[in-house]
Amino acid sequence: MSNPGSPTIGVFDSGFGGLTVLRALLERFPRARFAFLGDTARLPYGSKSRRTIARYAAQSAQFLVREQGAEFLVIACNTASALALDAIKDAVSVPVLGVIEPGAAAARAASRTGDVLVIATEATVHSHAYLAACQALGLRAIEKACPLLVPLVEEGWTGVPIAAGSVTSAAAAQAASAPPQVAVTEQVIRIYLDELNAEAKAAGLNPDTLVLGCTHYPLLRPLIQAAVPRGVRVIDSAESTAETALLQFGSRFANQAALPDSKIDPEIRCFASDSVEKFERLGSRFLGRPTGSVELVDLGG
Amino acid sequence: MSNPGSPTIGVFDSGFGGLTVLRALLERFPRARFAFLGDTARLPYGSKSRRTIARYAAQSAQFLVREQGAEFLVIACNTASALALDAIKDAVSVPVLGVIEPGAAAARAASRTGDVLVIATEATVHSHAYLAACQALGLRAIEKACPLLVPLVEEGWTGVPIAAGSVTSAAAAQAASAPPQVAVTEQVIRIYLDELNAEAKAAGLNPDTLVLGCTHYPLLRPLIQAAVPRGVRVIDSAESTAETALLQFGSRFANQAALPDSKIDPEIRCFASDSVEKFERLGSRFLGRPTGSVELVDLGG
Repeated sequence: MSNPGSPTIGVFDSGFGGLTVLRALLERFPRARFAFLGDTARLPYGSKSRRTIARYAAQSAQFLVREQGAEFLVIACNTASALALDAIKDAVSVPVLGVIEPGAAAARAASRTGDVLVIATEATVHSHAYLAACQALGLRAIEKACPLLVPLVEEGWTGVPIAAGSVTSAAAAQAASAPPQVAVTEQVIRIYLDELNAEAKAAGLNPDTLVLGCTHYPLLRPLIQAAVPRGVRVIDSAESTAETALLQFGSRFANQAALPDSKIDPEIRCFASDSVEKFERLGSRFLGRPTGSVELVDLGG
Repeated sequence: MSNPGSPTIGVFDSGFGGLTVLRALLERFPRARFAFLGDTARLPYGSKSRRTIARYAAQSAQFLVREQGAEFLVIACNTASALALDAIKDAVSVPVLGVIEPGAAAARAASRTGDVLVIATEATVHSHAYLAACQALGLRAIEKACPLLVPLVEEGWTGVPIAAGSVTSAAAAQAASAPPQVAVTEQVIRIYLDELNAEAKAAGLNPDTLVLGCTHYPLLRPLIQAAVPRGVRVIDSAESTAETALLQFGSRFANQAALPDSKIDPEIRCFASDSVEKFERLGSRFLGRPTGSVELVDLGG
């Protein structure tokens, strides 16, 4: 145990996309201990009923709190955040943070026009959770499902490596002379954004902010940033969630956030309920470092 | 009941892609009765263990036989055909036909070089069921997973309507001046086929036949046909399976196969264990006609 005495932060997703949220947390809690659980045996949550999702998410949260000793939970899963946040809060007695409200709050902070675009999976859009969160903050929002983006990320057709901070012009230049796989992804992003902008225009909106409402999308951030019109801010809800976590839980990790990057030495344990092979193969791309060996857990039926 | 006295053919898939197999069956059994079941609540089968898939597939087969009176079963699902065909045969007492062996048999009939390419989903390739079926017939085969093709079909980025028979040059010409969505799909197909041909060449194969090893791919057949080198035959395993069904079950449907197309008046009932809305919205594209209202069934745990 490399960080004795540090509280454990539990991070939960239905799959392994939430590792992008864990990655953003690592930068802000460099000496914390982390337990990440992907309920891969029962994904996709998106096609299941609210009651079933609530049961699965509650079981997963209890595993992180009871068996891994998590003192805070981050629900790094849009579907579970949208449909099961209350059920999770009822199931455990530690603070719980989802990904949707931080993303909406960051959009409010960024937007001058008050008009926001959201791209996400079909299930997240269908829940209208971002729309509701944005409206609760006085924003107007239009959501669009982009079902091809997750498989494009999982194929690795993203081209440019993800920089820790924002996109550099060098990354954009690299994307411009992209191999055919990356050109496909660029074209898909362009088609989706054109359709979304047309819908926004038809609805009389003047959007200046785009929320990435899926934990896979941070791997596409350089390509998306290159595709949006100048002046449109891209909000990465993984980053927003980690920032909110620092505000909510940070006092428990005195002075840790001030450590230089070279001092990052987090303790991470990853668990999955199935498909450990795919998790290990793809997960490091999301986490930005090796996941280590992923432990198989049985969460029950 | 439009076809009293006709036996019922049960068709099973984990989702609704198997409707392309039902479509091919309709052409050959124009007055049969059909019961189609998509176990949409428990998809994707591909990420689950063999034992779990066998249990789900056996429950689904029993529903079709016991509750819908099916006298023949067509397993229009590559994963279930690969991993659960024996379990299904043990669970019911009617003849059962999968999609893999008919596809491999059609490849053997078509190939002169004896070298075959197979494209399929990740789960089907991982099972190596086509490789084994091809090798059992004396063919050499190389399989490739093409995970983007299913979501591209479900997005409807296929462009050309599927003709009942083979691809016409008009369809190919239409594809050439395709909208950007179809251009994306063309490019994805080209990338996958280039990679597959390079692998075949490296392995010393001289393939002249390409098997479409996924029930979604018939909707891409015109684009795939346009992308393969001249002289390469494309085998649609949905068509091959329906052809084999006619040979195996056809004698029970005397003279029906000789009816002209205009006389097709099949009775079709569609069932799904969840996500009826998506089934109804997308299913007609796979079936080539409206699915009618899809009935929700509970298959148990």
